[in-house]
Amino acid sequence: MQDAAKVKKDDLAYNLHSWSAQGALNPLVVTKAEGIYFWDADGKKYFDMSSQLVNMNIGHGHKKVIQAIKDQADKMAFMGPAYAFEAKSEAARKIIEVAPDNMGKVFFTNAGAEANENAIKIARMFTGRHKIFSRYRSYHGATYGAANLTGEPRRFASEPGIAGFVKFFDPYVYRAPFPFKDDADATKYYIGQLREQILYEGPQHVAAIFLETVTGSNGIIIPPEGYLKGVRDLCDEFGIVMVCDEVMAGWGRTGEWFAVNHWDVKPDIITFAKGSTCGYLPLGGTIVSKEIAAYFDDNVMYCGLTYNGHPMGCATACATIDVYRDEKLIENSKNLGKVLGSLLEDLKAKHPCVGDVRYIGLFSAVELVKDKETKEPIVPYGKDPEKIMKKILGMLQNEGFATYSHENILIVAPPLCITEAELREALAILDRVLDSADNMI
Amino acid sequence: MQDAAKVKKDDLAYNLHSWSAQGALNPLVVTKAEGIYFWDADGKKYFDMSSQLVNMNIGHGHKKVIQAIKDQADKMAFMGPAYAFEAKSEAARKIIEVAPDNMGKVFFTNAGAEANENAIKIARMFTGRHKIFSRYRSYHGATYGAANLTGEPRRFASEPGIAGFVKFFDPYVYRAPFPFKDDADATKYYIGQLREQILYEGPQHVAAIFLETVTGSNGIIIPPEGYLKGVRDLCDEFGIVMVCDEVMAGWGRTGEWFAVNHWDVKPDIITFAKGSTCGYLPLGGTIVSKEIAAYFDDNVMYCGLTYNGHPMGCATACATIDVYRDEKLIENSKNLGKVLGSLLEDLKAKHPCVGDVRYIGLFSAVELVKDKETKEPIVPYGKDPEKIMKKILGMLQNEGFATYSHENILIVAPPLCITEAELREALAILDRVLDSADNMI
Repeated sequence: MQDAAKVKKDDLAYNLHSWSAQGALNPLVVTKAEGIYFWDADGKKYFDMSSQLVNMNIGHGHKKVIQAIKDQADKMAFMGPAYAFEAKSEAARKIIEVAPDNMGKVFFTNAGAEANENAIKIARMFTGRHKIFSRYRSYHGATYGAANLTGEPRRFASEPGIAGFVKFFDPYVYRAPFPFKDDADATKYYIGQLREQILYEGPQHVAAIFLETVTGSNGIIIPPEGYLKGVRDLCDEFGIVMVCDEVMAGWGRTGEWFAVNHWDVKPDIITFAKGSTCGYLPLGGTIVSKEIAAYFDDNVMYCGLTYNGHPMGCATACATIDVYRDEKLIENSKNLGKVLGSLLEDLKAKHPCVGDVRYIGLFSAVELVKDKETKEPIVPYGKDPEKIMKKILGMLQNEGFATYSHENILIVAPPLCITEAELREALAILDRVLDSADNMI
Repeated sequence: MQDAAKVKKDDLAYNLHSWSAQGALNPLVVTKAEGIYFWDADGKKYFDMSSQLVNMNIGHGHKKVIQAIKDQADKMAFMGPAYAFEAKSEAARKIIEVAPDNMGKVFFTNAGAEANENAIKIARMFTGRHKIFSRYRSYHGATYGAANLTGEPRRFASEPGIAGFVKFFDPYVYRAPFPFKDDADATKYYIGQLREQILYEGPQHVAAIFLETVTGSNGIIIPPEGYLKGVRDLCDEFGIVMVCDEVMAGWGRTGEWFAVNHWDVKPDIITFAKGSTCGYLPLGGTIVSKEIAAYFDDNVMYCGLTYNGHPMGCATACATIDVYRDEKLIENSKNLGKVLGSLLEDLKAKHPCVGDVRYIGLFSAVELVKDKETKEPIVPYGKDPEKIMKKILGMLQNEGFATYSHENILIVAPPLCITEAELREALAILDRVLDSADNMI
């Protein structure tokens, strides 16, 4: 039997929490989670409107996935990476089946950061080049390699950085340096800038371009039409490996198995994690094209980890993929994404504090401003002196709408099993809290 | 029902294997594992004499740990790192209880590489310095930060390296530059060299010294008496954080909860993984001293990952710690370690190809040479042109003795639940294979 006070006391006494000063923490004690909800120790229920860290796509407590975990635990909980066994073979095959058709093999990791770490190494080995391009306003993980890809303050703890990591700007059209006529105009500008930067870094030195297909926590930045194709063309022109980080955007989050499918672009490497097992157990991986896979037939791949191809993570991935299929969750994400988009547009039209809303599938953001015209963010960059975002998140949590924020941006990304009625109920909470936020600006 | 041929075919078709060229692979299909054994698809049984990758300390298929996994899956498979919940609180408390008494808090990761990544960042944040010392002949993981700590060829894929990573030599007494009279003499030399290197790197710039308490895959290099105390004294003298990587050496492997206990030294940070859950599920972590923990009360700790404090990994750790205690596995490791040591000394006395044996608890290595006098390794560094080590490993596997090698070194590190009779039976296989190896030199 859980004693909530003791759970919290031990938590604060013995655990270090992520991205925090520990002295000010007051974590909610969570005792139960099911579907799109979780409950605290007082029995209060919350809509999980960020799917935890945008990983709980199939919803909490899914019986089929839990059964698969139990079955694999009985069968064989662990076997080392040198061996072949059923769960690993099946998971890799199932992942290649749903990936773009140029993909060949999977290297399994524990999670997304390691997936990106290995993608960096693979791209460098494959090309023999060392420079790695990635974007500002991106998050690729917190280990040194992944953190050096990352284009926001969470990378600062990993600096001084690794030589050869180059940053370029993402197509953040809402805050573009000047207004674009249309998507084609935006794409022309961003791809033109990127091409010039590649030329001045020396294309012969550039191993890879990393991008979150749809930027996640940094604001659900959706590429304008033609942008990904433009990046693909640059990679083809200069022999650069195109890496799409689909750790957050993959696995139905945007209404497709992988977000790249929206634009019919085939990267050379896809990195994944979160939605592949929905966090029931840790798993991630680096999917490489058939061409890259073939390169490593004769060349040693200098990548490895104890839990590569972990039987339990692999069995969980197999069951999770079945759930996506059987329950048509990817279709649900696409369909309800339209409802979500329409509700978000209503919020934008109604609330002075909503500067922009961006959405694709059930992956969306609400960007808060002090002034719709000037687009001045509701909090200055990297700060929240009046604790405005903290207050807004607190009000949402009080009303049973759990999510997280990044700078002046609220993430709205519920489990893909949400119904239209539940989505409307949750968004009504957001609407009420934004009424209060309107009064803060 | 598993079809071994299909398992192998899919494995080779869709999986990338660690540290290998893929074209030459012929992985054993494993279908079952229990206690100190595993079985291939033909029903052939193997002694797991390396505990997989020195992680399967409690043995395969332990019912109590499997039950704990099932119970936690039913209760709550996942909850994000911002929240408090029972499994995370309990796991952190239990780990601090068995750690040295100066330890304060745990930051949970997925595995050992990330544990070391976060230790680097924590040491840099805590000291405000940037240089990181670590040793040649060490392995700390394959992500960029961990790989830059690593002092052997597996780090080369992560180069050009991160600025500020400095290497020093480990106390590899068997191949010391000149003979030492005794442990005190060796310690005086190695600590003296380290002190001089610190002085010439500028102690005011050195954040941390990382060392595997007992070097693992690089040859079970056991520090001479006084060495760890010497490193501790240097760290105290210069305000440097002492980090003991106990990913492999911890959790009873050497006959103590943590290997540092043998020498009664208290590091500032301990990193762990493998034995904490024995690989039943992925888990690792960075244990920090009370002093470092207190620093982060008021200072933001820039570390984070989606699966920090994963409920399933934490529940597994709790159950695993209970198994160590209830079944007196750490005592068994200490007691049978003496038997193992005696058997290994017999092999060294008997076989011309055995240059050295090193052992502590159930953590041991057999170092093979062409000539006992000259100590010339049985294979040249970084190469195996005549495939001698490959042949020896193949013979061992044929006889049902599964392990791995590193350069000219065989690892012998069975699960801690092995009995004396089983240990003698397995070592008799090794004895026979070494007869053949004698004929190769």
